[in-house]
Amino acid sequence: MLEELKQKVYEQNMELPKRGLVTYTWGNVSGIDREKGLVVIKPSGVDYETMKPEDMVVVDLDGNVVEGHYRPSSDTPTHVELYKAFPEIGGVVHTHSPWATSWAQAARSIPCYGTTHADYFYGPIPCVRNLTKEEIDEAYEKNTGVSIIEAFRDNNPVYCPGCICANHGPFTWGKSPAEAVHNAVVLEEVAKMAARAEALNPDIKETPQAMQDKHFYRKHGANAYYGQK
Amino acid sequence: MLEELKQKVYEQNMELPKRGLVTYTWGNVSGIDREKGLVVIKPSGVDYETMKPEDMVVVDLDGNVVEGHYRPSSDTPTHVELYKAFPEIGGVVHTHSPWATSWAQAARSIPCYGTTHADYFYGPIPCVRNLTKEEIDEAYEKNTGVSIIEAFRDNNPVYCPGCICANHGPFTWGKSPAEAVHNAVVLEEVAKMAARAEALNPDIKETPQAMQDKHFYRKHGANAYYGQK
Amino acid sequence: MLEELKQKVYEQNMELPKRGLVTYTWGNVSGIDREKGLVVIKPSGVDYETMKPEDMVVVDLDGNVVEGHYRPSSDTPTHVELYKAFPEIGGVVHTHSPWATSWAQAARSIPCYGTTHADYFYGPIPCVRNLTKEEIDEAYEKNTGVSIIEAFRDNNPVYCPGCICANHGPFTWGKSPAEAVHNAVVLEEVAKMAARAEALNPDIKETPQAMQDKHFYRKHGANAYYGQK
Amino acid sequence: MLEELKQKVYEQNMELPKRGLVTYTWGNVSGIDREKGLVVIKPSGVDYETMKPEDMVVVDLDGNVVEGHYRPSSDTPTHVELYKAFPEIGGVVHTHSPWATSWAQAARSIPCYGTTHADYFYGPIPCVRNLTKEEIDEAYEKNTGVSIIEAFRDNNPVYCPGCICANHGPFTWGKSPAEAVHNAVVLEEVAKMAARAEALNPDIKETPQAMQDKHFYRKHGANAYYGQK
Repeated sequence: MLEELKQKVYEQNMELPKRGLVTYTWGNVSGIDREKGLVVIKPSGVDYETMKPEDMVVVDLDGNVVEGHYRPSSDTPTHVELYKAFPEIGGVVHTHSPWATSWAQAARSIPCYGTTHADYFYGPIPCVRNLTKEEIDEAYEKNTGVSIIEAFRDNNPVYCPGCICANHGPFTWGKSPAEAVHNAVVLEEVAKMAARAEALNPDIKETPQAMQDKHFYRKHGANAYYGQK
Repeated sequence: MLEELKQKVYEQNMELPKRGLVTYTWGNVSGIDREKGLVVIKPSGVDYETMKPEDMVVVDLDGNVVEGHYRPSSDTPTHVELYKAFPEIGGVVHTHSPWATSWAQAARSIPCYGTTHADYFYGPIPCVRNLTKEEIDEAYEKNTGVSIIEAFRDNNPVYCPGCICANHGPFTWGKSPAEAVHNAVVLEEVAKMAARAEALNPDIKETPQAMQDKHFYRKHGANAYYGQK
Repeated sequence: MLEELKQKVYEQNMELPKRGLVTYTWGNVSGIDREKGLVVIKPSGVDYETMKPEDMVVVDLDGNVVEGHYRPSSDTPTHVELYKAFPEIGGVVHTHSPWATSWAQAARSIPCYGTTHADYFYGPIPCVRNLTKEEIDEAYEKNTGVSIIEAFRDNNPVYCPGCICANHGPFTWGKSPAEAVHNAVVLEEVAKMAARAEALNPDIKETPQAMQDKHFYRKHGANAYYGQK
Repeated sequence: MLEELKQKVYEQNMELPKRGLVTYTWGNVSGIDREKGLVVIKPSGVDYETMKPEDMVVVDLDGNVVEGHYRPSSDTPTHVELYKAFPEIGGVVHTHSPWATSWAQAARSIPCYGTTHADYFYGPIPCVRNLTKEEIDEAYEKNTGVSIIEAFRDNNPVYCPGCICANHGPFTWGKSPAEAVHNAVVLEEVAKMAARAEALNPDIKETPQAMQDKHFYRKHGANAYYGQK
């Protein structure tokens, strides 16, 4: 069942430790088959070193396990919410990557200080608010998804393919699991350079708008000219 | 004698350089056989590159060598004190891992700024006070253990499986040597992200209590649901 | 066509990920054949892992593709401007290396705090101003080159083989593609140590002029005595 | 000639890139044969990747080349001064290791903030003053050695086996080339943790004297009990 998607989701989960984004099992990647309405996701707490493609778990859009010999990631309800709210996306990633998580712990959105940021994220990368005790007690992981969606009322999830949840860590997404992981790597790099840039200049300014527009739109949209397409 | 435990203790000592926690011989792992009342620990100042399982030293709970062709780690009396005071633990680790040691040198406890911390440590990771000159002269390594135990009058050593000793470095523990090393890795990662988060926000707040409770208890205690158990 | 130069440019592009200067495809190296007036440059957005010497693109000094089955790097017009303005140089490098980019995002020139800097760069490494909206709209990549050249009215491009563009990242150059990459590595290391030195001392002073002179001229110019020449 | 010492000096030079202390050729190790009064040192500006034991250069205590097909390191006169002034030492190392160099650029001595420091260096690691223009013009490398020796009027070179030269970088030494490199690794680690500790606590205090004494003397002097001797 969904063997090809399982293989892709497995491979992208394996990218996380290779790219330095996760320690132990602190991360998960999923992918969706939009036609079947099924999500493939990493099992919960299973070692990257021994994990195999067939260990991936299949769940439906209510979060029910459809196939799999393991429990799905405990963050599955968050992934499912994002797939339901953002029809354009095909993959979701959650990590505790150190620099992005540091911004999350500082409870701050990441300002756009340079073209590395603007090449991928249009505008600041939002820090999503903490959940209330009631939201936590009711359905913590689901409501984490709900709070992210709320933060994207004013953000385009295609133009800003990720966020950081306060006191927690980053979520990113993309057209595919591979693009979602790519964006997780970019977010970590951007978070690192933004932190260092602030330390170098207390009066730091965001990148001029014309420059942000130039870099974002040379890689995205109808007039893109970066790469080979 | 205790060949299986020696093998485990050896393997976990080898994890320390592999995980980037030690430079040269700056760390040690031990494990206890509670039935026999014997502790297996790394020899003092022996290179990781040439160390073998049979080089591990066996000591009793008075710190006397029972078997071994090397001297035990000079920190052995600290390990022994912890085993006597905390009956739930099966392994102890000491390192000079850089970020945890930086907090120790700053003489500060590590506040809980995020879920990475709350997943493993309930509340701040305490910084244990300096010893007095008298305590140092009397029995430095033993009294290091005594001062840690004193700091855990108000801390549950199962819920907070580690601490940092002022101007020195971290000690962690767990049900087994492997879990103690796991906690040493987590502590280092948490120490790094807490330092960076503080630099990003001078008005940083600790993680809301409801969120700390949620994360700690979804991995620990009767209602845990993380992982495959 | 220009097989030897293609091989060299390819090899130096491969140095960028090996030396930790680029993530994904965030960098490019070019080299020039001054006799033929042709530039060899990395293709745009092609993976380092699959790239081959024959994928390098040949362009003339108007930026027109002369040979190549891929599009050239989107930064090609910047490289071309530099080759036209600085006749002494044979190679150009652009990266988003993290420390140099952090200074660029902070919009600050890098002061000369030590001999590591003075061994390669005479005086501060200039931060080049932002382009105006008009300059961006007219010809972004070309005008990036123009703004660099403008900043070198008061800087000798041989004595200061690189700069950082505000809110963007570093460009370096040298007699050959290899020397340009060497200077990119040095710039990243110098940027790192300058940032850390400032954090250690808010009243930090630049290196005394006599010491800067000594270090720069023992490696450059008629009286150099470093190395084996 | 001095084949055994050449082999040792070569091996310790190779440790520098392996331990992350040097970029390119930014470092050198030497060793002395006290009976013959001859020093073996790395050649100047030769790549670590192609360097061989027989490339090491032999110089006398006036810095004259006695044997070797390459020029000796340009820092040779500094090494020679140290050997003449400190009869207890058998090896000298110079690097531009990033954290130690950052302290040098900040022109600050490194305070003793913890036991990692106290295990190897008794008291602060001194920052040696800048040379005057006259000293630089007269004999830069020799006078670098003279300024270090001057700073050790009040420091025991056995109890404090290294220093950092303002706006330049670290020099360390030891009984042998291997011990000198070991101390260079320790200095870098200590410099890193001291910088991070200061960032965590503006009111940071040095390690209590009794604790410094305990750690230094459990590894050094007549009553040492660390390790297997």
